[in-house]
Amino acid sequence: MNIDAAKAALAHLDIDDNPAAVRAKSRDFFWYSPVLKDRLDHVCADFVVMPKNQDEVIEILRACHAHDVPVTVRGSGTGNYAQAMPLAGGCVIHMQNMAEVLRIAPGRVTTQPGLVIRELNRITRADSGQELRMMPSTAGTATIGGFICGGSGGVGSVRWGFLRDYGNILRIRVVTMEAEPRILDFTGEDLARVSHAYGTNGVVTEIEMPLAPAYDWIHIFVTLPDFARASRLAHALALQDGILLKLATVCEAPTAARYFQRFKGQVTDRDNVIALMVAPHSMDGFLSFLSHEPDAKLIYRSDAHDWARDPGPAYEYGWNHTTLRALKVQPEITYLQVRYAGPDFLDKVDQIRARFCDELIQHLEFLRENGVMTAAGLTLVRFSTEERLDEIIRIHEDMGCMIFNPHRYTLEEGGRQTVDERQLEFKRQADPKGLLNPGKMIAWDAPDWDYRRMYDYPGMRR
Amino acid sequence: MNIDAAKAALAHLDIDDNPAAVRAKSRDFFWYSPVLKDRLDHVCADFVVMPKNQDEVIEILRACHAHDVPVTVRGSGTGNYAQAMPLAGGCVIHMQNMAEVLRIAPGRVTTQPGLVIRELNRITRADSGQELRMMPSTAGTATIGGFICGGSGGVGSVRWGFLRDYGNILRIRVVTMEAEPRILDFTGEDLARVSHAYGTNGVVTEIEMPLAPAYDWIHIFVTLPDFARASRLAHALALQDGILLKLATVCEAPTAARYFQRFKGQVTDRDNVIALMVAPHSMDGFLSFLSHEPDAKLIYRSDAHDWARDPGPAYEYGWNHTTLRALKVQPEITYLQVRYAGPDFLDKVDQIRARFCDELIQHLEFLRENGVMTAAGLTLVRFSTEERLDEIIRIHEDMGCMIFNPHRYTLEEGGRQTVDERQLEFKRQADPKGLLNPGKMIAWDAPDWDYRRMYDYPGMRR
Repeated sequence: MNIDAAKAALAHLDIDDNPAAVRAKSRDFFWYSPVLKDRLDHVCADFVVMPKNQDEVIEILRACHAHDVPVTVRGSGTGNYAQAMPLAGGCVIHMQNMAEVLRIAPGRVTTQPGLVIRELNRITRADSGQELRMMPSTAGTATIGGFICGGSGGVGSVRWGFLRDYGNILRIRVVTMEAEPRILDFTGEDLARVSHAYGTNGVVTEIEMPLAPAYDWIHIFVTLPDFARASRLAHALALQDGILLKLATVCEAPTAARYFQRFKGQVTDRDNVIALMVAPHSMDGFLSFLSHEPDAKLIYRSDAHDWARDPGPAYEYGWNHTTLRALKVQPEITYLQVRYAGPDFLDKVDQIRARFCDELIQHLEFLRENGVMTAAGLTLVRFSTEERLDEIIRIHEDMGCMIFNPHRYTLEEGGRQTVDERQLEFKRQADPKGLLNPGKMIAWDAPDWDYRRMYDYPGMRR
Repeated sequence: MNIDAAKAALAHLDIDDNPAAVRAKSRDFFWYSPVLKDRLDHVCADFVVMPKNQDEVIEILRACHAHDVPVTVRGSGTGNYAQAMPLAGGCVIHMQNMAEVLRIAPGRVTTQPGLVIRELNRITRADSGQELRMMPSTAGTATIGGFICGGSGGVGSVRWGFLRDYGNILRIRVVTMEAEPRILDFTGEDLARVSHAYGTNGVVTEIEMPLAPAYDWIHIFVTLPDFARASRLAHALALQDGILLKLATVCEAPTAARYFQRFKGQVTDRDNVIALMVAPHSMDGFLSFLSHEPDAKLIYRSDAHDWARDPGPAYEYGWNHTTLRALKVQPEITYLQVRYAGPDFLDKVDQIRARFCDELIQHLEFLRENGVMTAAGLTLVRFSTEERLDEIIRIHEDMGCMIFNPHRYTLEEGGRQTVDERQLEFKRQADPKGLLNPGKMIAWDAPDWDYRRMYDYPGMRR
C-alpha cells in the first residue's frame, strides 16, 4: 500500500486529507450499535477523494490498484452496519460530486449515485409527478447510491417489497478495480452481483430505478392503548388493497411518549402509535376502515392538525429513525432487525413481548415479502452487555425468528449468514487484488470462518 | 303503470320508442347464460329515454314515479347477469348522453356515468398519464357507470383488489326515485349502499374514481405444456411485488388453440396460455423471473413480435372475453364464476380438473383479495342441461369453492346469496314504490325466498 504514490497520482482531483475531515468521512451510523462502536471507533482512511465524473472514478481506481491502496466508497454514511467504513484505511471515495439526474421517463429515472434521495424525489416529482418506489427514513441525507449498495428496503416496502426483488432496481453501472478498470452494466438477474454488496466488487457510477406516482402523502399518527390490537389494526390496514399506503409502522408504548419529543402532550406513556403515509385519494377509505376500531384515535394528520409544533414526516418516526430518536434520549438504546415469518407472525411478536418485558420495546414495519404482507421488527433494546445482546438474539432465533444482526460489519453476518456466491464470483473478476471495501466479505477473506464467532478483521479492537 | 302518461310528460326529451331499438336496448349480455337466455329472451321495455344531464334524470324519475312506471338504467349493456334488463318493462334510461369527464386531479377523476371506459382512460391518460385502477375486459364498450353498478373487478384486480374494497371507488352521486327526487352523494362506508346495486336504489349521475399511472403496458402471452405448472408460474409471478402487472390470466389448453382465432399457428391444442400485462419498466424483471421456468415459452410481446395478425390487447383474452371468444366458436359453451380460497387454492383447481375432465376448461384470473394473492375461476363449461349445470355448481361447492352464479339475474343469487341490508335499507328510502330495476333484489320482492330454488320473478318464462 503506497498511499503517497496514489495521492500524488490523484493530486489534480478533489482530494481531502485534512485529518478531521478524513476521520469524519470514514464513519457512518455504525454507532447505532454499541458493539460496532467499540470495535470500529478508530477506523480511519488516509485520504478522501471526490470524483466529479466516471472518468475520474476510473482514474482513482486505476491509481489505487497500481499502488495497492484499499478503496471504500461512500455516500452520506447513513448506514448502520459500518457499510462505508474503511477498515483497512486507504482511500475513501465520496460520491457527493456525482449527483446529477440523467434521464426521467414514465416509470423510470437514471441518476448518478451521489444524489441525496429527497432531492432525487424532488426532481422527478417536479418533472413528471413521480418518485422512487422506496426510500430509507434517512432520505433527507442518504444518497441513492448508498441506498442501493448498503440498504435493503424502507418507506414504500409496504407496497413494493425489497430492493432485491425483481423489478425494484432496473440497472446498475459499475467500474471495476483492475489494472485497467472496466465499465459494466447489470440488469435483471445480474443485478444481484452488485446491489447490496457494500461496494466490495465495483464502484457504482450510474443507477436506473423504477418510479411510482408521487402523491401528496398524508402523514398520520394513530394511537391505541393495546399493542396487540394496534399491530393487528396496522396489519389489516396494510392488507387493504384499495388503500394506498407508503408506510405502516407500529411503535409500542412508551416509545412515543419517551422518545418522540414533538409528541409531548399528545400521547401518554400507555399509547402505542401507528405511523402511516396515506395517499390523499385513499383518505376516505382509510377513515372508513379506521372507524371500525373504536379504540383507535387519530391524533394527527398532516393536512389538518392543531399541533403547536409540526412533527414532520411520519417516515421520520419509522424504520431506523425510531431507533435514532430513542438513542438521542437514552444513549444505552440499541436495536435488532427481526424477521417474523408465517401467518401467525403477530402471535410470535406477542410471545416475544411476554418473554422480555421492558428490556425490549417492539417496533414493527409492515412490508410485502414475496407477495405476502408481513412485518419486520426493528426492536429497541436496552443494551447491557454484548453477551446479553447475543443471548437476546439467540432467544429470538430459538423462537423461530430470523435476525439480520445490525451489530456486525460483514455482508454475511448482517444478512443471512451465508456466502453470496454471485457477489463473491464477481469480486474475483472485478477486484482481483481484494482492495474494494476490505473486511466486509467473509467469503473473500476467510472462506472457512465459523459463524458462531463474530468475524474479526485484523486491526479491529478487542 | 301509465306508460302513455309518462311518455307524454317526457316527450320533450330524447325518447326512443321504435320497437326494434327498444328491444335492443332492453338486452345485455345475458345470453352468455343459456339459463338466462331461456328465461329472459322476451324481456322488453316500453320506451327508452336518454337524459342529457342530471336535471333530465330528475325529471324522468319524477314523471315515472308519478305514473308508476318501472325504471331500469343501463350503460352499454355488457353485463352478463341481466343487470340492465327491464323485467317489468316500463322505462329504460340509457346513459349514453351523459358521458363527460368533469375533473381530473392526481389520483382521481370525476366523471359522468355514461362514458365508455376506454375513452375515459384515453382522456385521463392524455391529461396526466393516469388511468383507472381496474376495468372490465369489455372496456372498449362498457361504461364506467355500468361497471360501478353491475361489475365487481377485472383487469387491474391483480393489483388493486375489487371495486367494493375501501378506496377503489371514491364517491357516487345518485338521484332517488321519489315524488321529489333527491340528489345524494355517497363516500366511504356508505358507498356500499349503491355500488354494485344494479341501479335498484338510485340512478347514478356522477362518479369519482381513484386513478393509477397509465403505463404503455406490454401485452404478453406465454405458453406452457402443463396446466398445473402454468397456474403456479402465474401465481408466483403475481406474488412478485416489484414486477408491476395489470393482468395475470391462465387459460387451460385447448382454449387458445380452439377459441383464440388469431393464435392460429402460434399454439397447439396442448398449450396452456398465460396472458399478462406488464409495465414497460418491469419487463427486465419479468424476463429474469420467467427464465427460471424452462418450459415457459414467451410467444408474444406487443412491443416486439412477428405475428401476421396482431392479436390485440391481452385483456381481451382474459376475464369474460375468454368466455365470449369460446361462445363465438362453440355456442354451447357457458361459464362459471368460482372463488377458490385458502393457501392451497391451486391444488383445489387441480382436484376439480381431475374430477371433470373435458366438460370444464379451466380459466383463472389472479387477483388480490384482502391483501392475499388468489385466483378466481371463470371456468368454461360445455352446457348440456340446467340440471347438470346445477350439479356442477353443487360439486364445486361441496369441494369448498364458492360460486357467484352467472346464471341468475338477482343481486343475491349472483352474489353471496345473502341479503345486503345496506342496499335494502337504502332502497326503502330511495325507491319507496319499488320501481327501480324490479325483480333484481329478492330481499325487496320476496324476503322469505328459499334460495334452494332459482328466483322466479313474475312473467319470466318457464
